[in-house]
Amino acid sequence: LTTVEGPFLLGEAIAGGVSFHDVFALPDDAAAVQLGSRAGIEITQVAPDVLKSMASSVSPRGPIAVISVPEAPQPRRIDTIVLWKLGDPGNAGTIIRTAAALGFQVIATEGTVDLWAPKVLRAAVGGHFRAAPVERFVADPQELIELGLRPILAVADAELQAEDAVKGQEPIAIIVGNEAHGAPDGLNALPGVESMSLAMPGGMESLNAAVAASILMYLRISC
Amino acid sequence: LTTVEGPFLLGEAIAGGVSFHDVFALPDDAAAVQLGSRAGIEITQVAPDVLKSMASSVSPRGPIAVISVPEAPQPRRIDTIVLWKLGDPGNAGTIIRTAAALGFQVIATEGTVDLWAPKVLRAAVGGHFRAAPVERFVADPQELIELGLRPILAVADAELQAEDAVKGQEPIAIIVGNEAHGAPDGLNALPGVESMSLAMPGGMESLNAAVAASILMYLRISC
Repeated sequence: LTTVEGPFLLGEAIAGGVSFHDVFALPDDAAAVQLGSRAGIEITQVAPDVLKSMASSVSPRGPIAVISVPEAPQPRRIDTIVLWKLGDPGNAGTIIRTAAALGFQVIATEGTVDLWAPKVLRAAVGGHFRAAPVERFVADPQELIELGLRPILAVADAELQAEDAVKGQEPIAIIVGNEAHGAPDGLNALPGVESMSLAMPGGMESLNAAVAASILMYLRISC
Repeated sequence: LTTVEGPFLLGEAIAGGVSFHDVFALPDDAAAVQLGSRAGIEITQVAPDVLKSMASSVSPRGPIAVISVPEAPQPRRIDTIVLWKLGDPGNAGTIIRTAAALGFQVIATEGTVDLWAPKVLRAAVGGHFRAAPVERFVADPQELIELGLRPILAVADAELQAEDAVKGQEPIAIIVGNEAHGAPDGLNALPGVESMSLAMPGGMESLNAAVAASILMYLRISC
């Protein structure tokens, strides 16, 4: 189970066909009543203090719904973004948002933040319900290769430019590593795994992980 | 004045030549002592509770420095990202990080979050000290045109694709609007202001503002 918060995300969850267990809203929440009747969901009215104690956000306006985490779909042979031990829920959600917008499949390794945590759901703004992520599938890039994908690891100092690396007919698996530690040592030395870097002419050490992942996905559909 | 937190950001601030007023650290913070002696800054030792009460982060490890906000530089005729009433400090900081990495100038309108707020500084990971933003310069795109820039507004439904819009010899000013409300009505109807959109074949309504701004900047240096 997980929780989704706010009228927009609830609407997306309803449209996405997830199973609802409970929905809690403030007594004067007209939008919640409307959503509930549209979806045939019974709403439990709660006081502001109760709503606040249930919410992951600081100033929740509700409604808050308890939903079943949908069963993970089977991974497919399409362009994919792989979260390799990604730690920040905001980054994970933002990547899911971009992936849903650009038509990418999302795969996460063990050690990545729970992709169905409320903060991830919030940052993804409904992306979960349009293109459900496939969690904890890979432990080794070989599994991506067996799926028919070409794994390309995003690193800071590869010789191969990202614009060139993402080209080609074969579906690719863009791998982004942990925010603080990057990709695990040795991952890029595995057979069949390429490395690529984004240009940073201004000279910072790195980009935000969600930004880097999103630029790489966009280059894939654009270049 | 503003505060910068953590050894990395302090190191960047020292390298950037900002003026320090006070630095606070825990008694056993060896990294702070090292930074202090490197920069000739006196460090005041404080108890964990005191450090926590000063910090903007939930689990501060210090050091925390009070610095002067550097004087805003004069705007230049180079590629620019314009934050039009952007509200989220994390987004603003992430955009400053990408801008610094890609060599863009940052301009913000009145109504944009304070670019020197601690949360913005944290998300920018030192970007402020490499490419200082120019705050609250424009109230009208005409000011960008007078600076010799070509203003292009990022919207959800323009006919012009971003990849084509950002091309050209003349320096451009990419304008991104508020997270919830987008760009103000009528901005794209002003003379000399173009509109552009990113492709979203997957079908979400929008991308995260920092992601959209970062993709657009990267397309500019890459396409």
